This record gives sequence, C-alpha cells and structure tokens, in this order.
Amino acid sequence: MSRRVTLAVVGATGQVGAVMREILAERAFPVDQVRFFASARSAGTTLPFAGRDVVVEDAEGADFRGIDIALCSSGAASSRVLAPRLAAAGALVIDNSSAWRMDPDVPLVVPEVNAHALSGVVKGIVANPNCTTMAAMPVLKPLDRAAGLRVMVAATYQAASGAGRDGVEELAAGIGDGASARRLTFDGSALPYTTGVKFPVTLAHNVIPLAGALVDDGLFETNEEKKLRDESRKILELADLVVSGTCVRVPVFTGHSLALTLGFARPLSPEAATEILSRSEGVVVHDLPTPRLAAGRDPSYVGRIRTSDAFENGLSLFVTGDNLRKGAALNAVQIAEAWLARG
Amino acid sequence: MSRRVTLAVVGATGQVGAVMREILAERAFPVDQVRFFASARSAGTTLPFAGRDVVVEDAEGADFRGIDIALCSSGAASSRVLAPRLAAAGALVIDNSSAWRMDPDVPLVVPEVNAHALSGVVKGIVANPNCTTMAAMPVLKPLDRAAGLRVMVAATYQAASGAGRDGVEELAAGIGDGASARRLTFDGSALPYTTGVKFPVTLAHNVIPLAGALVDDGLFETNEEKKLRDESRKILELADLVVSGTCVRVPVFTGHSLALTLGFARPLSPEAATEILSRSEGVVVHDLPTPRLAAGRDPSYVGRIRTSDAFENGLSLFVTGDNLRKGAALNAVQIAEAWLARG
Repeated sequence: MSRRVTLAVVGATGQVGAVMREILAERAFPVDQVRFFASARSAGTTLPFAGRDVVVEDAEGADFRGIDIALCSSGAASSRVLAPRLAAAGALVIDNSSAWRMDPDVPLVVPEVNAHALSGVVKGIVANPNCTTMAAMPVLKPLDRAAGLRVMVAATYQAASGAGRDGVEELAAGIGDGASARRLTFDGSALPYTTGVKFPVTLAHNVIPLAGALVDDGLFETNEEKKLRDESRKILELADLVVSGTCVRVPVFTGHSLALTLGFARPLSPEAATEILSRSEGVVVHDLPTPRLAAGRDPSYVGRIRTSDAFENGLSLFVTGDNLRKGAALNAVQIAEAWLARG
Repeated sequence: MSRRVTLAVVGATGQVGAVMREILAERAFPVDQVRFFASARSAGTTLPFAGRDVVVEDAEGADFRGIDIALCSSGAASSRVLAPRLAAAGALVIDNSSAWRMDPDVPLVVPEVNAHALSGVVKGIVANPNCTTMAAMPVLKPLDRAAGLRVMVAATYQAASGAGRDGVEELAAGIGDGASARRLTFDGSALPYTTGVKFPVTLAHNVIPLAGALVDDGLFETNEEKKLRDESRKILELADLVVSGTCVRVPVFTGHSLALTLGFARPLSPEAATEILSRSEGVVVHDLPTPRLAAGRDPSYVGRIRTSDAFENGLSLFVTGDNLRKGAALNAVQIAEAWLARG
C-alpha cells in the first residue's frame, strides 16, 4: 500500500471515534491528510492525531470533496443523510451504524469472512456489522466452511459500552463500592434499583434480558436479536440460517460475549473445530475467553468448544470480543485496508 | 399442621443456613424445639431464633436422637457422613448438597413440581436440587405438562453467592468503585485481572464461561452443566430429555438466571405458555425478570416468552430466581412443609 489517502472520521469525538483514531495510529494507516467531523456542538475543538492537533469540523454543510475514505460512526439517523453526501463527493463510506447494513446494494463486510463482497460496492457505501454479531463471525465462517452451519442458538452477554459513552457512565454510577454492593446478596433492592436511561433498569450488579429495544415484528424480539439473525445470514451468505438469539446486557464495561449452540450439516468434532479455529484469522482459541481478557485487544477469543446433543452434528462454544475494537472501530479500519489492498 | 416438630439446621452458621433460619421464622414453621449444628470451629457460639439465643452444637459426635426433621447445608463431604447418622437417629434429612441427589433411593424434590416423589423416601433422606436447576423447574414442569418438553438449550448467568460466602467476598473485593472500573472500557487489565480462589479468574466486571469445575466425562462439561442435565431429568421425570447447557458466572451477588431455548412434542404458543405460567405455583411472569428483582424474593420470575425456530414447537424464555432462597433454603423448608402435610 504505497498510496496515501485523505481520510475522514465522522463522529470523531464519540467513543467509537476515539478508538478509530487510536487504531489508525496503531496500525500506521497510510493517511496523507485526516479530517475529523462531528456535530455542531463539538465543531471547532481539536483532537490530536499523528503529532498535531486537528480541528473538528461541523459535518453538516461541510465540503466533503477530496475525501478518499470516510469512517462514519455518528449514528443511524445522521448516517442516512451524511453517507450519501460523502459518497456523492467521491468518498468510499465505511459506515458503523445500522442504517445501511441490510441494503442489498451495500456490502456488509468482515474482512476475514467476506472481503470479496467489496466488489459489490455500488452506492459508495460499505456497512460495518453490529458489535454482537461481529464477535461471532470470524469463528463461525471457518466452521461453516468445514461442516455447513445450519442453526445457531445464541445467548449473549453484552457490555455497557455497546450502548455508548452514556451506557458506560450509567453503569459506573450504579456500581457504588464492593462493600456496599455486598448487601445485595440478601436483598436486590439494598442499593437503588430504578428505571434507567440507556438501560431499562439498573445494570450494576444485575443482568438485563433485553438488550436493545423490542421491535414490532410479531416475534417479541429485540432489534439486537433481529440484527444478529439478519446480519449473520448476510455476512455468512447463508440465507436460510436459523438464528435464535436472546440478547442480554451484563455489568461489564467492554467485551461482548456469546454462548453459542450450533448445528451443522456434516459431523464436526470439538477437536477438529479447535484445530480449524486455532489457525483462523482474527481468532484466538483460549481456555477461558472472558470480556476482561478481550477488552483492549483485537481478536475474537473462543473456548469451551464441546459436543452438544441439542442438534445433529452439534457443537457448543463461547466467544468474546472487544465490541469497540473488532466490534466497531477495528473492523472499519480493516475494511479500509482491504479496500486499499484491492487497488 | 397442628404438629410441632424438633428441627435441626446443620450448617446453621453458613450463608444458606442463615437464610434457612430467616425463612423458618418468616413462614412460622411449626417448630417445637430447634437445634443448630455446625463444625467444631463454630460450636459454642449462639444464634438468635424466635426471641432466644440457641447455642450452636458441634455436629461431629452429637447425639441426634429426638430430631424429627434436619435441614442439612454443610457441603457434600460432610453430608455423606452426617445424613445417614441423622436418618439412623430417626430424622427426615433434607439435604442441600450434591451428595445424595442422584441416588435412586433418594427423592430429588421441588414441591410445586414433584411432591409425590416424597413417597419414595427409603433412606430417610430427601435431596434439594442445585440452585441453577431449581430456578427453571417451576417454569418447565407446567410447560412440559402442556406440550411435552423434549430439548432444552440453556445458557446461565450465575451469581457469586452460588459459590458461598467466600464467593461473595471475592466478588466484592474485586469491584473497587465505579469511577475506577470505568477505565476497563478501553483495557480489561486496567484493574487487576488475576487467578481467583472461588472463581478461576477475577469475576468483578467480567463474565466467566466456566461455573463449577470441569468433570472428566469426556464431554468437556462442568459439574454445573452435568447437574443441570441429570437433575432436570430426575425432577421432571423425563429420562430422555436433551439438556445442552453452558454455565457462566456473572458479577451479580444473588440471583441465578437462565436463557432457555426449548423444543416441545406438541405446539405451544407464547400466549398459551404465558397464560399457563401466570397461574403456576412459585412462578411470576414479568416483563423484565432480573436477578436484582429476584434477590430476596421467593418466586421464579419468567419473561421474554417468545417463539423460537431453533426447534419444532420451539419457545425461548428467560428465568431468574434467588439462588439462596428458592435455590436452596426456601425449597428445603418447603420440602419439610410438604412432608408434614403428608402426615
């Protein structure tokens, strides 16, 4: 990659934007010029990058000409407006919101899994999957290739940072301290248990079996559960994959985990699955994959790989990954790298 | 119940023993005389009960004659010795350990589910199920009765107090405070992440996909996962029930939860399941069943009841219950009440 590009980060002041800036520096992404965009509220502030301060521009009304690649992480509503404007100005838009993921003319890409889908860019937009689905994709693709994935039952353990910086603050505010929290052993209301803002009830020292919001699809499922199904099918190119998910928020700051029970078309032993995963890109096989292990690191960690008799050719396993890095910022940067590598 | 009994609590100074003493008082259990037993270390101390102080006796070498019912919660090794001695002295032993649960001559009882099994007492011992299995039983039995349960995929969210008082202290010690813990958002090792004593690694702000210890059954499952299968089959009287569990510890003090995906022999709509559960004993249907809601309360809370296409006639739901109350102490007292009601 000798070419150096003009790169935009839209939503640069947000939580994912911050991790994007960090990862661009870590990976020495070939930036010629960088431009940071945010809402009017943050415009005019500066953010450091590559040893100098970059002034944050107001995305609304900005002149986007000259941008080669735009990493967008400014939310779905904003993205519906900004992504087409950026693309019309000539940028490849890599969008982290849910706005474009299910558009048939927008590839939904995890580079280790379906980089070839980048040939399907017709609107100038590529979508980044949601953070929960993402952790599982680098694990599921090689297993599907080996044995034909047919069904996935998923129970998730999703971190507060998946709900943004406000989610992190809401969890932190509820924690109190260990000595007080211990009183919850005999009474769950010994500390305040109330309606939350980012979460429906207090997340601290709790588990909330409703990540996201209920969607009106007649299935009584959440938008997180629907994304897990729809996005898994699109990324894995398995239109008929059965996905039955329960999306649960846990009192963890970063690191989304999934307990997966899988059924395959052909036999796949735990030993064979372990061998395949141990040489799969973006995956680390680990005895005890936990969010504390994954937070701040790049790969999806997978473990507890064992036979399940719930399905013919069944396997159970546990996956965890950093929802801000691979689950958002890292994958967006990796899409940009894959795009440049295609020339 | 006009009869008043001589009741023993063995392991009276422990965490479950404390909840047993509280529940006996709450429910005005018909105690004539109470005796508290513990290990030599605690013998001679006193515990309050019904307005007076009761001296704790050393269980080893004690004279058990005259005891009608003994609630035992002193661990499996101790119970293997004490339960037969108590039974030989004429007591009905209700044992909370794993020692006797799978003995074919020992009923494993959840009164709402299989009180009739009390007719099978042949050794003078009745076993109390493990706390994770327990939360699900009052929910699964009425659904099985309606539609024939065939398969259960379970991912659990198990609280620290399931690992005893030391588990609670280990979690509390790791919590620090919210302001510090927030740093884990970008680095899971920003606070100490180490090998634990009751838990394999730090549980605070984490999720550990290994509750219990791995058993050498060739299945690479934990003893918690094995108990969930074996005890569910015995209590529900479904020898062929397929149970595929992943037992996970979460940073919650009390309240074990399960995300369940179920397959039935006959159709069962979410509406019908909800209607059945709303009139089932020991069950409360709730929009958002969480451990913080359940801790300190008696019922199993169930919600998120919806169709799953993972199995023919499939349903998904989420259950949570207090692992110290219904999961241990309450169920033991309820077994004693059911025994007395039989006369």
